[in-house]
Amino acid sequence: MTIARYFEDFEVGAVREFGDYHVTEAEILEFAGKYDPQPFHLSDEAAKKTLFGGLCASGWHTCSMVMRMVVDAMPPGENGALGSPGLDELRWLKPVFPGDTLRVRSTVLDKKESRSRPDMGSVFLQNEGVNQKDEVVVRFKPIVMYRKHPQG
Amino acid sequence: MTIARYFEDFEVGAVREFGDYHVTEAEILEFAGKYDPQPFHLSDEAAKKTLFGGLCASGWHTCSMVMRMVVDAMPPGENGALGSPGLDELRWLKPVFPGDTLRVRSTVLDKKESRSRPDMGSVFLQNEGVNQKDEVVVRFKPIVMYRKHPQG
Repeated sequence: MTIARYFEDFEVGAVREFGDYHVTEAEILEFAGKYDPQPFHLSDEAAKKTLFGGLCASGWHTCSMVMRMVVDAMPPGENGALGSPGLDELRWLKPVFPGDTLRVRSTVLDKKESRSRPDMGSVFLQNEGVNQKDEVVVRFKPIVMYRKHPQG
Repeated sequence: MTIARYFEDFEVGAVREFGDYHVTEAEILEFAGKYDPQPFHLSDEAAKKTLFGGLCASGWHTCSMVMRMVVDAMPPGENGALGSPGLDELRWLKPVFPGDTLRVRSTVLDKKESRSRPDMGSVFLQNEGVNQKDEVVVRFKPIVMYRKHPQG
């Protein structure tokens, strides 16, 4: 299952699931050490005293793992992804623990042609990171700019 | 300049600036290689053909750098930060390039005591990443849970 290649290929309402990301303790510690060195992301002992209940990934790390699965699901070769101006309503719903396996569920909420740039448009998605228990661990609504098909 | 330690210490309307993060090409490439391997985050040549105009950091990397500055600005020792349920209205406003130096501007928008947990509350912030030209590169509104002062 790959992501649509160009703006025209996104169908509002379409849902795609993809990805298979195995979360390791080593990677949780490495990311947290660099970018989010709070005790509950660095030590299982410290995390057990918190709302998380055990060592868990930084929320930014969870988003980054989702992003990696999104990029891996892009069709090979040239594609129309032009970057993102942002996202709305990001919620970290469950902790991500060592040993979890994540996948992505991506829903096309809406799409709009650009007024100023007739060769591109914006796609409004809902992306969810889902773990091996089918729990949604993160949900957010990215806006992604896509080029239209070169042949129009 | 440090961040407030406990829920009571956050004053609605207060603005704090902190951090000093030097962005290197090596770190941009390392993060993108792991989490966001799109051409414009991996190659200056590829990025020159895009809206970004040159090699730039993954948006998730930019957020992660902001997070690191936030954690570094937390007061030393025990603090009341309990994690975040999410954020709203994230916008990547300008690309982040190698050689940029970022800082954080954090504004307290609102705060609310928890109804179910009298020992904690939610703090509503606006965090901005700002570069050396005083351009806001990223803006988002995180919700952060904070413990109240142990002595009440």
